[in-house]
Amino acid sequence: MTAEPRLLANAIRALAMDAVQAANSGHPGMPMGMADAATILWTEYLKHDPADPNWPDRDRFVLSAGHGSMLIYALLHLTGYARPTIDDIRNFRKVGSPCAGHPENFMLDGVEVTTGPLGQGVAMAVGLAVAERHLNASFGDELVDHHIWVIAGDGCLMEGVNHEAAGLAGHLKLGRLNVIWDDNRITIDGATDLSTSEDIEARYAAYGWHVVRRDGHDVASIRTAYDEALADPRPSLIACRTIIGKGAPNKQGTSATHGAALGTEEVAAARVELGWDAPAFEIPAGIADAWRDAGKRAQGDHAAWQARLAKASDGAEFSRRMRGELPSGDAVADGLAALCAEPKKMATRKASEAVLNVLAADIPELVGGSADLTGSNNTKAKSQAPLTATDYAGRYIYYGIREFGMAAAMNGMALHGGVIPYGGTFLVFADYARPAIRLSALQGAHAIYVMTHDSIGLGEDGPTHQPIEHLQSLRAMPHLDVYRPCDLTETAECWQLALARKNRPALLALTRQDLPAQRTGGENLSARGAYRLRAAQAERKVILLATGSEVEIAVEIAARLEADGIGADVVSMPSTELFDEQDSGYREDILPDVSNRQILRVSIEAGTTFGWERYTGLHGLKFGIDRFGASGPAADLFEKFGLTADAITPQILAKLKEYEA
Amino acid sequence: MTAEPRLLANAIRALAMDAVQAANSGHPGMPMGMADAATILWTEYLKHDPADPNWPDRDRFVLSAGHGSMLIYALLHLTGYARPTIDDIRNFRKVGSPCAGHPENFMLDGVEVTTGPLGQGVAMAVGLAVAERHLNASFGDELVDHHIWVIAGDGCLMEGVNHEAAGLAGHLKLGRLNVIWDDNRITIDGATDLSTSEDIEARYAAYGWHVVRRDGHDVASIRTAYDEALADPRPSLIACRTIIGKGAPNKQGTSATHGAALGTEEVAAARVELGWDAPAFEIPAGIADAWRDAGKRAQGDHAAWQARLAKASDGAEFSRRMRGELPSGDAVADGLAALCAEPKKMATRKASEAVLNVLAADIPELVGGSADLTGSNNTKAKSQAPLTATDYAGRYIYYGIREFGMAAAMNGMALHGGVIPYGGTFLVFADYARPAIRLSALQGAHAIYVMTHDSIGLGEDGPTHQPIEHLQSLRAMPHLDVYRPCDLTETAECWQLALARKNRPALLALTRQDLPAQRTGGENLSARGAYRLRAAQAERKVILLATGSEVEIAVEIAARLEADGIGADVVSMPSTELFDEQDSGYREDILPDVSNRQILRVSIEAGTTFGWERYTGLHGLKFGIDRFGASGPAADLFEKFGLTADAITPQILAKLKEYEA
Repeated sequence: MTAEPRLLANAIRALAMDAVQAANSGHPGMPMGMADAATILWTEYLKHDPADPNWPDRDRFVLSAGHGSMLIYALLHLTGYARPTIDDIRNFRKVGSPCAGHPENFMLDGVEVTTGPLGQGVAMAVGLAVAERHLNASFGDELVDHHIWVIAGDGCLMEGVNHEAAGLAGHLKLGRLNVIWDDNRITIDGATDLSTSEDIEARYAAYGWHVVRRDGHDVASIRTAYDEALADPRPSLIACRTIIGKGAPNKQGTSATHGAALGTEEVAAARVELGWDAPAFEIPAGIADAWRDAGKRAQGDHAAWQARLAKASDGAEFSRRMRGELPSGDAVADGLAALCAEPKKMATRKASEAVLNVLAADIPELVGGSADLTGSNNTKAKSQAPLTATDYAGRYIYYGIREFGMAAAMNGMALHGGVIPYGGTFLVFADYARPAIRLSALQGAHAIYVMTHDSIGLGEDGPTHQPIEHLQSLRAMPHLDVYRPCDLTETAECWQLALARKNRPALLALTRQDLPAQRTGGENLSARGAYRLRAAQAERKVILLATGSEVEIAVEIAARLEADGIGADVVSMPSTELFDEQDSGYREDILPDVSNRQILRVSIEAGTTFGWERYTGLHGLKFGIDRFGASGPAADLFEKFGLTADAITPQILAKLKEYEA
Repeated sequence: MTAEPRLLANAIRALAMDAVQAANSGHPGMPMGMADAATILWTEYLKHDPADPNWPDRDRFVLSAGHGSMLIYALLHLTGYARPTIDDIRNFRKVGSPCAGHPENFMLDGVEVTTGPLGQGVAMAVGLAVAERHLNASFGDELVDHHIWVIAGDGCLMEGVNHEAAGLAGHLKLGRLNVIWDDNRITIDGATDLSTSEDIEARYAAYGWHVVRRDGHDVASIRTAYDEALADPRPSLIACRTIIGKGAPNKQGTSATHGAALGTEEVAAARVELGWDAPAFEIPAGIADAWRDAGKRAQGDHAAWQARLAKASDGAEFSRRMRGELPSGDAVADGLAALCAEPKKMATRKASEAVLNVLAADIPELVGGSADLTGSNNTKAKSQAPLTATDYAGRYIYYGIREFGMAAAMNGMALHGGVIPYGGTFLVFADYARPAIRLSALQGAHAIYVMTHDSIGLGEDGPTHQPIEHLQSLRAMPHLDVYRPCDLTETAECWQLALARKNRPALLALTRQDLPAQRTGGENLSARGAYRLRAAQAERKVILLATGSEVEIAVEIAARLEADGIGADVVSMPSTELFDEQDSGYREDILPDVSNRQILRVSIEAGTTFGWERYTGLHGLKFGIDRFGASGPAADLFEKFGLTADAITPQILAKLKEYEA
């Protein structure tokens, strides 16, 4: 490389200020402030190959401060990735450009994770670092030996999830994780001292991190910080004191550069300040070449790695896992068939544990865990040892009381590849993890949430612990599969679907309380989302739709109606999303046109009735709970809230009379 | 008091282990471990009067580790509160007993806040402490001079929100806040070192807290810790090293005591260990009397305070605020009427700012803030100065990038009384605050969420920042009023409703982009939840239901339909909850029976269509966005997602043809 780092960094500054100016929208301050530290990282340290962005042993780079997206777009472009092109950058923040407002992993290779919601980039990086060490423990340094680099801002460090993520990283001694903190002392509202007085370095030290501090514009000093971080066995926080918007002579160091275009005058002034003569979106050849050369640094490493992979006895297994393909063979299917063959009365959380014992034995990439509810979530399979700082080969993580951090780490693990993470908490605490569940869905991360105690069936813990709105509010989220199985067989089916639908997250809602078996294996009927569990015997007058623990109630109601000569289908609906994906013929067969007033549709689910009109229509009946729960034994609560065959059957009969009238 | 603290503490231990045993459900470990520290606090330090649990100048006690609920039930009972009675305690965790699994503020006086969802107790205590200092700044030591005491467990300190809350408390130097940490080194999964290696005391010191450490069973030493905490001007963390389940000879110190009954044998063994001869649910007279006497300690203080209140010139104003009553007079109504009289094209976030300028001038108890988006949320009224560590009289809080911490603090402020908190962030980040929003709703806390950038209208920031499922997932939550106004007038109306409906939280969803005026004041039509904004001119064939920014589109569609001779009502629906509360006559007038296929119902909202069947029926049309958003200018996105009159009108015409066929 011939150009000095200052000049290389100015290429980032120019692209950032020009792209934001062209869009008249965006955040120039962060890319300009972090240009020096990022240049050193990407031209001298980061192990990557722009010609093969998916090289499994590449370093992972996470721009946790995702609003500074022009930084990563500039870095990808300058180091020679196929995209973004300079035209992509010209179209920054326009519909169709991969240079979106925030970096989206599904729009550009080289964007490892989607960032923007603050704090989650660092937290996902913890998951990337867990996956790296875990795979290293399985496949050795020959195949897995890389680092996780993060650029984070004050916002990332102020968010609560940072505490969970940093605490977990310190505990697991994730030395491959290096977080570069853009310490510019500016937030949107103004100086950081408007809202915080924290000693961030002391806090990180309290978590067991290695902490160094540098002038973020002194490149020689930054190099020594990166060297120290690489050498230290602990995760590292590299505090870089920077000037936000550096290079914009009148606005740098102020919140004016944070989230708005600099304006044409200030952009022109910055060109003078930086000594940058090139027109907008043009990079002088010498500087462009130097960047391109830096992007080729690891080509030799990459080739050597490919050679090692080709020779490795476990190379095929490594590649299978990294592709996200499940093991071939019938072991899992056979094991689950055997498990479900006998009718067993059990809670679906226990059913899930039994299923996991089968799955974990044959799917080594399954890495489980729980946010301190292992015995309640039943998430630990017999074959799983704990993953700890002294044994990264373990396949079970004690995440601690960190639901959000767990979910974000799971996203990082899933997006690293090579592992399929699942993790548990109570369904009600899906709220704590919700911002990360949303990022699972947006990113298409194959993370599986095991959410137990899924209704008032949780009992005595009361309304703070009883989900009401959760099932529906999760079903409302795009691209997330929610499963609520009614027995052991459906639990096995839903787990199989969750594993098979690999480009999206899944969430299993499971009971605390025992449920009877409705089926004993057979075809995976849950794959249709909803299916006729019991067909009407007498002339069909009623269709009972139920999920999970309420299927048992629906079956009992149907029996009572049939005893009165009223035909009633029972439809079990473990997944509304999968049902909605079926063709209209199938859906019409299960739920004939609602305008046929001869058939009453009834939904039963121990949660909010909000949204059930989608299946009952406006003239059907919806049984559920549209208030907060209460503390008491589960059976007493089902009675209190009218979710029993005794309470529901007469209301159905009354409605049928109304229909006839 | 004659009985020594050890004996008093054993009364707590006995009640806790006996009640949990009777319920065969609950958490004996924490109450037994913290009995000593709690006894000293409640018999020697806590300022309260069981005869008047709502005395405004009482100390606030928060059991953040809410699963140990028998601790507070024992304390309330022993110190002489009317409830819980010993029978209430016998019925611990039964339907109808106020001794619910977790302490619920709406079931028992003396339970200041509902706890159980971990971390939120400490975070709400921060809000209690803010309210205390703020009211002190306004009303002086004579009327407001109390402390906030918290008992927190490891889980409370491990949750992410703890970082946000402790950081904010340190920054604001909330010296009235004292957190007693039950350092028992046990979580549900086992020893804390399974999941954490953090130096908690160093972390708190990094936030600017005063930290002391004690043996949690050495009462003399605990006293000195409390004295130090009271004397220190910083918030205090009092680390109490305890033995979980202390007194249960075979199980103490292990996770076996955490969340399950000890068993009859171990309860009997504990009686021997503690030298506690009394039968279950009986307290020996000497000990009961000593507790009761301790409960009377502050009666003199209370009487003196009442005398001061009666004399104080601002006593009536103080009492008004504490009752949660708005100021009388027409100033607000007149100001808003004047504001709305002229049609103005503006974003509803700007409309909200204009409304706040009127409200804040006349409602001194309004305390605003934002999670670092002040200029975007438009939450700061002109008359509000910042609330800071050096000026607690300020009425605007720079919460920092702490959405969850902000919301939890708002709950604490609202439940303290005397202030009405509101706070802003982007609607998409309602997810970050969601666990606290749920507690606002459950507790009936009068907190107002100002959520801006409420759709793809946010534009270039892209899918991570664009709410899709949020409106519906918030409407699915019980007891939360969601408002989405369509112009300045509706914004003023919704703010008035949010203030008037005082025993519940409200959430306003506001646009980034400009919207035209649909009305200019008049009767508060938003109070009906939905109303006919434009009545069909030609014979009514269509009802267009829209909210917020999509009302403008509905009005344009109606104009086009009318031009074709098709009558179309436009119904603006700022609040589905309030509409659902209306009588059936009103609802039927706005939305005539859907089985009347002569009228097509159409919903338009720039979010998920999930749940809109409630109003459109299965044969109506729903326009919305059932996928994640995209990055681009707002107008381009409305076009991309088909939310324009051009895109929607032909689909309505086609559906009408289908109806006619």
